[in-house]
Amino acid sequence: MSVPLHYVVKTRLIELVEELGEGAGLPPERVLAKDFGVSRWTMRQAIRELIADGRLRARQGQGTFVATPKIVQPLALVSYTEALRAQGHTPAREVVKFDEIPASDVLAEQLAIAPGDPVFELERVLFADEQPIGLETTYLSVARFPTLREVLEPTGSLYRCLVGQLGVEFGEGEELLETVIASPREADLLKATQQLPMLLLHRQTRDSAGHPLEVVRSLYRGDRVGFRATLRP
Amino acid sequence: MSVPLHYVVKTRLIELVEELGEGAGLPPERVLAKDFGVSRWTMRQAIRELIADGRLRARQGQGTFVATPKIVQPLALVSYTEALRAQGHTPAREVVKFDEIPASDVLAEQLAIAPGDPVFELERVLFADEQPIGLETTYLSVARFPTLREVLEPTGSLYRCLVGQLGVEFGEGEELLETVIASPREADLLKATQQLPMLLLHRQTRDSAGHPLEVVRSLYRGDRVGFRATLRP
Repeated sequence: MSVPLHYVVKTRLIELVEELGEGAGLPPERVLAKDFGVSRWTMRQAIRELIADGRLRARQGQGTFVATPKIVQPLALVSYTEALRAQGHTPAREVVKFDEIPASDVLAEQLAIAPGDPVFELERVLFADEQPIGLETTYLSVARFPTLREVLEPTGSLYRCLVGQLGVEFGEGEELLETVIASPREADLLKATQQLPMLLLHRQTRDSAGHPLEVVRSLYRGDRVGFRATLRP
Repeated sequence: MSVPLHYVVKTRLIELVEELGEGAGLPPERVLAKDFGVSRWTMRQAIRELIADGRLRARQGQGTFVATPKIVQPLALVSYTEALRAQGHTPAREVVKFDEIPASDVLAEQLAIAPGDPVFELERVLFADEQPIGLETTYLSVARFPTLREVLEPTGSLYRCLVGQLGVEFGEGEELLETVIASPREADLLKATQQLPMLLLHRQTRDSAGHPLEVVRSLYRGDRVGFRATLRP
């Protein structure tokens, strides 16, 4: 056991958080440090970790509060908007970029086009209850969806537009999920106040004929979002 | 943009990592800092983040190396052993605990037993190619599996034992996935040298009749493991 004191402090702090309950304010760091009989540095470390875990939440100038439970998103081909509404949250999107870029070698292979072919790059911040929780970047072949700019309301549901207006039928997709540290640019867009662990999803979908549809990179705040998968025997 | 210098350094470091290729040694921190024209502190931060992301790997006393790709585990009801072998890795398990404990209120509800009823707690470290990559804690009702201690080889596959020796038929399960900071005890068992983000999976499975089978808490090193899900329309 390398840092037993830290462990004891974190465990006691978790107990306190559970006792206080959702939305309650945490006593100031110096008061807690005194109560627990540890240094402010040790206390601060334990608080920072519970913030990164999503059990506590710091509000600038207002102190630290017991966080509400994480938003749990299904690992499925459903619209962000619908999944969030189903959980009682208010979804929103903000467009950061909607550009045409030449396909890199990797992207070209994933989308089954030639390197250099034009690709839409749509980058959007995802909000839940006015808080930024994710950053989603979608890549689509321009040749495949030449009218996308005319038909897509850029803050609206891309999936609804693909299915409803562009006649797409989704087939199987694949998602890879990992944890990463956000780049400063990403942390800034997601208004993360410390180097929070993020959940990064790489998604590739195909249409019902097996042709690649989109490549998506979604970054979610690890302190605010979790994912749910159904396991089948 | 809050820390542009840091961003530039991290981006250039990623390019260097890609250029060097898998397994290559990274030049010493002070050399890189000089080359990049930044302070050693800034360089160290960028290196630490790439270690947390799993792109670099520190070996005690030997320096820092370009990491091999993450192990990608399927989100499915398959044995750890089989999934790892399918990817060309050598799996192993080490038992930390195999105890009987009284069910807490939460555990009792999840397993459909009464609070205080005896529950097996089986905690094992999961290895890939002799490196610890995960810590798995499984809870099973003692009344449901009274002979478990006699039939289970504790470092062997629990699923193979349940299906092959105890006649279990798996039904649907559910998995929740989030990112957390490991406790010092957990970090110690997983030989993590810094506060790495971890992937935490909460799994609940049922048998084909719909009765709860097991509750599992699996913690994986975020720098070594990712997960894959198949998305169906």
